[in-house]
Amino acid sequence: MQCVHAPIRCFIHRAAFRWRRAACSAAHTSRAPSAASPSSSSSAYPPVQEPERPAVHTLVPGPRSLELARELQEVSEARTVQFFHDPLRSYGNYVADVDGNVLLDAFCFIASLPLGYNHPNMLRAAQSEAWLPHLAQRPALGYSAPPEWVQLLRTKILSVAPQGLDMVQMTCGCGASAVENALKAAFIRKRAIERGNDAEPTVEELASCMHNAEPGSANSMCAASFEHGFHGRLFGSLSATRSKPIHKVDVPAFANWPALPFPVTEKDEERCLEVADRVLSDRRVAALIVEPILSEGGDLHASPAFFRQLREITRRHQVALICDEVQTGVGATGRFWAHEHWSEGVSDRAAAVDAAAELAPDMVTFAKKMQASGFYFKPEYLPRQAYRIFSTWSGDPLRALQASVIIDTVCADRLVERVEDVGTYLLQALQQSRRAGMSKIRGRGTFIAFDMPTAAARDKLIADVRNRGVVIGASGERTVRLRPALVFERKHADILLEELQYALPE
Amino acid sequence: MQCVHAPIRCFIHRAAFRWRRAACSAAHTSRAPSAASPSSSSSAYPPVQEPERPAVHTLVPGPRSLELARELQEVSEARTVQFFHDPLRSYGNYVADVDGNVLLDAFCFIASLPLGYNHPNMLRAAQSEAWLPHLAQRPALGYSAPPEWVQLLRTKILSVAPQGLDMVQMTCGCGASAVENALKAAFIRKRAIERGNDAEPTVEELASCMHNAEPGSANSMCAASFEHGFHGRLFGSLSATRSKPIHKVDVPAFANWPALPFPVTEKDEERCLEVADRVLSDRRVAALIVEPILSEGGDLHASPAFFRQLREITRRHQVALICDEVQTGVGATGRFWAHEHWSEGVSDRAAAVDAAAELAPDMVTFAKKMQASGFYFKPEYLPRQAYRIFSTWSGDPLRALQASVIIDTVCADRLVERVEDVGTYLLQALQQSRRAGMSKIRGRGTFIAFDMPTAAARDKLIADVRNRGVVIGASGERTVRLRPALVFERKHADILLEELQYALPE
Repeated sequence: MQCVHAPIRCFIHRAAFRWRRAACSAAHTSRAPSAASPSSSSSAYPPVQEPERPAVHTLVPGPRSLELARELQEVSEARTVQFFHDPLRSYGNYVADVDGNVLLDAFCFIASLPLGYNHPNMLRAAQSEAWLPHLAQRPALGYSAPPEWVQLLRTKILSVAPQGLDMVQMTCGCGASAVENALKAAFIRKRAIERGNDAEPTVEELASCMHNAEPGSANSMCAASFEHGFHGRLFGSLSATRSKPIHKVDVPAFANWPALPFPVTEKDEERCLEVADRVLSDRRVAALIVEPILSEGGDLHASPAFFRQLREITRRHQVALICDEVQTGVGATGRFWAHEHWSEGVSDRAAAVDAAAELAPDMVTFAKKMQASGFYFKPEYLPRQAYRIFSTWSGDPLRALQASVIIDTVCADRLVERVEDVGTYLLQALQQSRRAGMSKIRGRGTFIAFDMPTAAARDKLIADVRNRGVVIGASGERTVRLRPALVFERKHADILLEELQYALPE
Repeated sequence: MQCVHAPIRCFIHRAAFRWRRAACSAAHTSRAPSAASPSSSSSAYPPVQEPERPAVHTLVPGPRSLELARELQEVSEARTVQFFHDPLRSYGNYVADVDGNVLLDAFCFIASLPLGYNHPNMLRAAQSEAWLPHLAQRPALGYSAPPEWVQLLRTKILSVAPQGLDMVQMTCGCGASAVENALKAAFIRKRAIERGNDAEPTVEELASCMHNAEPGSANSMCAASFEHGFHGRLFGSLSATRSKPIHKVDVPAFANWPALPFPVTEKDEERCLEVADRVLSDRRVAALIVEPILSEGGDLHASPAFFRQLREITRRHQVALICDEVQTGVGATGRFWAHEHWSEGVSDRAAAVDAAAELAPDMVTFAKKMQASGFYFKPEYLPRQAYRIFSTWSGDPLRALQASVIIDTVCADRLVERVEDVGTYLLQALQQSRRAGMSKIRGRGTFIAFDMPTAAARDKLIADVRNRGVVIGASGERTVRLRPALVFERKHADILLEELQYALPE
């Protein structure tokens, strides 16, 4: 097939041709200069291979980043921006910044980048004909979906559904919307059980809810969450979030939503389970939401046995267990979903298989590495009436198409297995490295963290390492968290280790 | 420039070539068959011109739509889906469905489609090199933005900012997230004023908010909204929503958030303003949120003078006025923002200009027709501390790129002026048509509605008209709402009128 149009005839032709050439050069490792590049970079897009190592020649953020932040701050929040990245020169595990630095990225857009930068599979899919109609307009999926949507949910999004969670509700774009809709589903079901499954809301309920009043509004019901947990920043999800005061202060919250203690040590688990059992039996609790690893709160882990007990307690009290996998999901812990670890330690193989089904949460939320957001749920959590869990867009087909590429790539390249291998390697090396100040080195897969003595020491370490070309992140009060992409390899782990060792004396 | 790769060498090449051809055929009105079409359709994509008229040969939804809905319902909510559309065969104001019907669309994905289907400008932009890196990965914009983001906000998103609202916060994907973040900004500012602008939250506030308790959580403060208003379905936005019980029942709400009466007639406005004045002076109200036309609630209008008084009352009581333009914004009312109508009737020209600045709300939310979501705000609503209005993605560059194409097209094609012309034409024709059952024919631009005697009569009309090839929508209890795209012309209005007249006797 040859091009039959002279380029002058069609602007679109030229643009597509540039694309094609760039994309082909990615596949064939020939480097052609990119025309009409949208940034100041003059090298070819997309890059064709990863750098061997980081390369920094300014502090990070550098002068260009600082100038852009100043410009941005005139019109929008920019104080949180760490540096401006250059998507045209980033590739694989390396992020380029606008000052010409190239950094090994072990934080990946706050744990939200599954395949690294400019992955060939994503570029190929993005340029395929199948994506174009979904770029042309955004449908209101709950009102009128395209036929591809049904296949996309059935064969891709649900192909990685947690065991027993056979349905999915896509939401509009962030983890908080996934969490809030899952919480709504839990309240709606709890009330349906209370009034008997076939009963409609009463006239009084329908009238009172219009004034935010009981009995229509379920104000005396609540959702429980754990101290140090993070579930989002909108009003419902923020009421369940317990990680940092700066997220919560000055915003109205549901005062009767209880916070449960999360075990600091394995010894503390029994006490925490007793509290959970008491709170969940005493109050009108519709849901308990928990991260399999409390991530923003400082990578707090509990044993599989703790979570098994929690599942048992929630089942006994008819409380929906919502597992919030926005940060932990999609492979990073060496399982596709982190809650799959909950069956570990069940000795008999057959018992473990049974346990996995028994242990399944009632709902599992996702966003971040999935690119699309939503939640899987057991069919009994579908409300009896339509239009109760709904929004205009009810999802995003483009982000769901990206999710399908991610799922395909994770499967084809066995990335979950790779994460487990690299994670084990990195965790052991960190534990053996015995650097000054590092403590509580912990993790699952490459979802690894360690503590520093103080917040200041932690922040200094992150800045020092970044100025030498490696990006890592903070969480909790004094924790460093590693959140590399799923394509992070042992060779990348070696560079990370090297820079940590350089920054910290033995 | 000629293609130099044989297609066999590169899958990407082939995909891009198909795209290029399809896009060129759109520009040159030659029809070439599309290879490897993602749907069952066999015609060329994208279509090159609008049909002359609707063409239906099944009921809508037809058998294929019903079959797809059945399949979808096995794995996700499908009871709300009206029909499955075929994006490959939809064009301009006409939506094709999967049963081979072609319908004139005057509802446009619940008022969220600004340029109709497969607009050439959007297709051209989507295939440009500039979009590709943003398709390759989704950045966490609040953490590390690409340099294009600064320009996109400054030169595009802010080019249509309401007067005096010089800053913008993008949110993650739906109107509800825009509303909830605007509400948070209002609470944060109100508390900052209360404690004195330079004071940090106290230790007690920081500690108590972790338990969702006062004084840290602003639980005795509230956001006021109007009866029949709609602002979203997440926990905070749903507390402000007062349109239908089915949205609200069984979900916990903030019980102390007051609902204000919205005037049914112009005579009722004074009473409603008195209530607003009393409530806003009596309670600790941080924000009043209002749609310029209460849309989901049944297209309820009030006079410009009413809104001017509301602005005056909110200013007097130091209450943030949030204008929710998720449905009304981006041209549909014959102004870019519907609240621009508020200065109408101010007699003197110079006074009207002053009034426009004086009347500006403190924040204006957007989503739907903008494709991207967020809110404009006056600089004093930027929180003093960072990380208070924040989320991982903090926006969506792809949807913001779409917004920039929409803004450019609206300006270049003078679509707001066109909407005003077509809307005036359609409204007058409807008012003159005197059809049985139609009452209260009202509107601004093409944002037009009328009532039917009962909900059943309304629903029957919508179904009848759709089965003859025209899509219109419902709102309120017995209202029909028209929400065509901004490219809707008089000739389309004529077809809509014809079908309404066919369905209803004189």
